[in-house]
Amino acid sequence: MTYGKFISIEGPDGAGKTSVVKALVAKLEADGITDFMTTREPGGIKISEQIRNVILDVENTEMDARTEALLFAAARRQHLVEKILPALEAGKLVICDRFVDSSLAYQGVARNIPTDLIWEINQFAIDNHLPDLTILIDVPAEIGLERINQAKGQRQYDRLDREGVSFHNLVRDAFLSFEASSDRIVLVDGTQTIDEITEKIYHILKEKQMI
Amino acid sequence: MTYGKFISIEGPDGAGKTSVVKALVAKLEADGITDFMTTREPGGIKISEQIRNVILDVENTEMDARTEALLFAAARRQHLVEKILPALEAGKLVICDRFVDSSLAYQGVARNIPTDLIWEINQFAIDNHLPDLTILIDVPAEIGLERINQAKGQRQYDRLDREGVSFHNLVRDAFLSFEASSDRIVLVDGTQTIDEITEKIYHILKEKQMI
Repeated sequence: MTYGKFISIEGPDGAGKTSVVKALVAKLEADGITDFMTTREPGGIKISEQIRNVILDVENTEMDARTEALLFAAARRQHLVEKILPALEAGKLVICDRFVDSSLAYQGVARNIPTDLIWEINQFAIDNHLPDLTILIDVPAEIGLERINQAKGQRQYDRLDREGVSFHNLVRDAFLSFEASSDRIVLVDGTQTIDEITEKIYHILKEKQMI
Repeated sequence: MTYGKFISIEGPDGAGKTSVVKALVAKLEADGITDFMTTREPGGIKISEQIRNVILDVENTEMDARTEALLFAAARRQHLVEKILPALEAGKLVICDRFVDSSLAYQGVARNIPTDLIWEINQFAIDNHLPDLTILIDVPAEIGLERINQAKGQRQYDRLDREGVSFHNLVRDAFLSFEASSDRIVLVDGTQTIDEITEKIYHILKEKQMI
């Protein structure tokens, strides 16, 4: 059996990742491709959910930035081992909404920890299982924030959802700098409609022989 | 105010660490030294306790070795930030029952993860706050195990307490190899009585100007 392909979808908040993954699923199925799995941490994995609960507990106001980064890496590890790797071993295409690059952008930039240190603990967590391809959906901070505000009430807010435009700009710039220095990451313009973005990603998946 | 001194007590299970720390406290107090704090992870720190509960949950049989190592590092970080560093800043002598060396010995050796990788994630967690001095109480595996068996019923058993003599030998050898390569670590023979061990440690603390 052929080992599956592993794709991550990244981008700042409000880039449209969740909607795009949904539309991508419909497009894959319409095209007769069914041997895939979409996921996002903690992905229903019990241990990862327990860890996530510690991270998101609004009463944990004393949470140190490095503790948080280690907990994200731990939840990632367990989700990878219990869910992503078995699917890849079964030959499935795995599409994961956020992965290591989000930690580099958010824990690194947001919490002001050097990105190379965040990279080290994430390398420990993923142990060489980087995605084969990462799609970065890029949007300017203002557009991303506007979309988040419009979606208020539909999304659940937590301890991490409290940042302004300058923060979102830092995150965006971090993602763009990763893209500039990695062949693994392909940029997609997130100011387009969900259909246009999905079409673009589908084309990239074909081109890169992921499907 | 002078910054406090940070001492960790290490050794395999059954080395007598807990009894020695207790005896050491009595000896410090008898000597008029009161500005100290003893602790051991999770040390009553809420976030560290929550993390510890995830690690020790007997139902978490799917726990991956790297997830576990990251969780230990996360709990360590929070305990350091909330408890050890404030005490050191207040000028206290801090005596901590187990610290990074235990992770190197147990997560490294026991779970078969390269020690240098365990070291990396722990460096991230402690961010240069290594102990000023580490006392390694050494006992042969057979003696340590015998003491543990005698203490059964008084100690609470958990997911990590299920190993035999060859494992305990590996842990002991790991501790001894750290001691051989680090000026920070001082060896004490743990086959002596608690009083003798305590006397020896007290002498070392004086000699190293920790008290």
